[in-house]
Amino acid sequence: MSDQKRIETDIETLRHISEPCAYGTQRRSYTPEFRQGVDYIKNRMEEFGLETREDQIGNLFGILPGTDPSLPHILSGSHMDSVKCSGAFDGLAGVICALEAARMIKESGHPLRHTYEVMGTVGEEGVRFGQALIGSRYMCGIIGEKELDEYVGRDDGLTLREAMKGYGLSGDISKVSRVGEKLKATIELHAEQGPIMENEGVSIGVVDNIVAISWMEVKTVGLAQHPGTIPMSVRKDAGVAAFRLILDVRDYVEKKYDGHATVTTGRLNLMPGSSNCIPSECVFTIDIRAESEEYRDDIRNYIISRAPEVAKTTHCEITVKEGNSQAPLELNGHIRDLIEQAAEERGYSHTRINSGAGHDSMAFAELWPAAMIFLQSHDGLTHHPDELIPYPEMAKGANVLYDVIRKLDGEPD
Amino acid sequence: MSDQKRIETDIETLRHISEPCAYGTQRRSYTPEFRQGVDYIKNRMEEFGLETREDQIGNLFGILPGTDPSLPHILSGSHMDSVKCSGAFDGLAGVICALEAARMIKESGHPLRHTYEVMGTVGEEGVRFGQALIGSRYMCGIIGEKELDEYVGRDDGLTLREAMKGYGLSGDISKVSRVGEKLKATIELHAEQGPIMENEGVSIGVVDNIVAISWMEVKTVGLAQHPGTIPMSVRKDAGVAAFRLILDVRDYVEKKYDGHATVTTGRLNLMPGSSNCIPSECVFTIDIRAESEEYRDDIRNYIISRAPEVAKTTHCEITVKEGNSQAPLELNGHIRDLIEQAAEERGYSHTRINSGAGHDSMAFAELWPAAMIFLQSHDGLTHHPDELIPYPEMAKGANVLYDVIRKLDGEPD
Repeated sequence: MSDQKRIETDIETLRHISEPCAYGTQRRSYTPEFRQGVDYIKNRMEEFGLETREDQIGNLFGILPGTDPSLPHILSGSHMDSVKCSGAFDGLAGVICALEAARMIKESGHPLRHTYEVMGTVGEEGVRFGQALIGSRYMCGIIGEKELDEYVGRDDGLTLREAMKGYGLSGDISKVSRVGEKLKATIELHAEQGPIMENEGVSIGVVDNIVAISWMEVKTVGLAQHPGTIPMSVRKDAGVAAFRLILDVRDYVEKKYDGHATVTTGRLNLMPGSSNCIPSECVFTIDIRAESEEYRDDIRNYIISRAPEVAKTTHCEITVKEGNSQAPLELNGHIRDLIEQAAEERGYSHTRINSGAGHDSMAFAELWPAAMIFLQSHDGLTHHPDELIPYPEMAKGANVLYDVIRKLDGEPD
Repeated sequence: MSDQKRIETDIETLRHISEPCAYGTQRRSYTPEFRQGVDYIKNRMEEFGLETREDQIGNLFGILPGTDPSLPHILSGSHMDSVKCSGAFDGLAGVICALEAARMIKESGHPLRHTYEVMGTVGEEGVRFGQALIGSRYMCGIIGEKELDEYVGRDDGLTLREAMKGYGLSGDISKVSRVGEKLKATIELHAEQGPIMENEGVSIGVVDNIVAISWMEVKTVGLAQHPGTIPMSVRKDAGVAAFRLILDVRDYVEKKYDGHATVTTGRLNLMPGSSNCIPSECVFTIDIRAESEEYRDDIRNYIISRAPEVAKTTHCEITVKEGNSQAPLELNGHIRDLIEQAAEERGYSHTRINSGAGHDSMAFAELWPAAMIFLQSHDGLTHHPDELIPYPEMAKGANVLYDVIRKLDGEPD
């Protein structure tokens, strides 16, 4: 059985390792506080007898060697970074439950045949560079040398390469990619980040699909003028142009796709930003998530066709830049069945569920059998200081994860 | 006759004394660059034989003693500070034309009977502390000791007192107020900041009224959640609440009052500001300008009554805080007639006009006979790097100002 107390200690310790922020926990990748968090996890791994390794992009691995070194490894974990002013469970729940499974294996006295790796990734959240899944995409060879200079920090203007160097990495990423390596499985446990499982009183979520995701950056350009002297009807107000487009897109998606797709504007900068000046420029993001590529493309097309109409009525210019885009993804069917089986055997309630959020597993699924386990998010809160997976649910998650690893270990390769 | 070349030299020199900004000129009050600008003007005053004096709030005076020291002084000038990333004429045009008038008096060989003061004020723009007309309101005893600690810098969190001390002022403001002093007149020359005079081909604007102005700060509070997992219809998106209220208010004012009132949102902060997080909080300003208090109050009431309706439909909380408010103001009738007369005698085209912007003259008018002269703003641009009063128009403005001072000087007190 998993040790709920031990899980709680790890999460609550990490909660207090945070960049300064008004509320909650914040550990953006490559910050000194991120380093402190990684060091805590690394120390805990070593304390329980795991070998540790950090790759040159900043991913952490805690290794429990199997009895047959020739067999493919089993990986489990999630990301170690957070968004701004966030909570203690997003990402870390998966790292700590994977560590707990390692501790359970160690303590059982029955080592695995396959080598087991506890994994903590870097840069999963797009908050620092406007680019998500950085650590996992480097592991999977999806991005490389070029992106080290192309990804630029939004708050400090540092490139990924500069941020990594400041963090103490060598800049030699030649050994980060694990392309060509056969893995038995990657299993990522994660908070649901929505209200469904708690509402249904379900403990284990077997994730079927990860939705399609697109990011866009929109810029409106008007004219900075004095607010008292230009009639409303002839202004070129870049703020008004932005707000109209955002609400038009929002209303379109709510009306046509509520429950099946979302659009969100979470970042918006109005310039020059004086209360007594008509805005000359507004830059904002649109985050699109949809159950299918068809829905996602329809929303994207709506934005692209609506922008010039709003530009015309507001006398502004609007440019739409398309950012990262992820196709929807189905996770490994066999491992999904094993998760369901393990939950059933433990007597835990379970359900099939889709993920509205993107995860490192999207990258892993390109190369290896990948699966995800969801746990309840209390009140559906996520990316919020009060986000919570109740600890008894964490303990159940670790048990199911342990069981699935054992089942996989017993299967032929 | 005024010397157009001399005016141009002063403006173009001051254009290049600027805080670092992406484009344009920026000299916010009490910054090192503001100090450099003040020093330039002060040196020019002294170069042309004016005595200079700075009061302990940061206003600058260049004094040309009259032949009868017992007579009330005549003041002319405007403000020396700017908004962010702005142009070279707002405020400074009035300071430099007032200086040019002093140079003309000096060079005429016929001193005035009344002492003439060229004035440059501090903190007219609300950009640094969210409070406008700081220097002039201290001069007129409208604000005092209390506000030194109450006014807090928006970008740096410094109080007015702290900013002043950093600028080298003593903190002893006891001699700033000129309440009780009789002045003959205050005359402020300023850019129109709108397109009317240029469109009509008119050189001299005789300002009848300054419109009513109110500032409001609105805060919407929602819930920070993951963008992929919360259906659109049940979100508490603080950004969407803000955008809806802003556009509702804007559409109301455009429909009911276009050409007679304006609302502007120039500053807006979305928190936590991550592209992959539903905004939890949004703080924004609404700047209201109206020809009459009746219109202004109607718009204010619309905002206050509309806010809870938007809050309800967006599942957010909205609080509306009322800031500074200025009643509409009629400028001195006799001086207005003198300005018109002077323009007529010079053969310059002229018009009566209202000011949609607030000015230091609003404070001066509470105590003394106050008047304003408007000059053309090319393309109506203002608070913009490309704002321009054509120099031949500046020269005309200085001539009219000189003539009005001469006329006032010849009148009995």
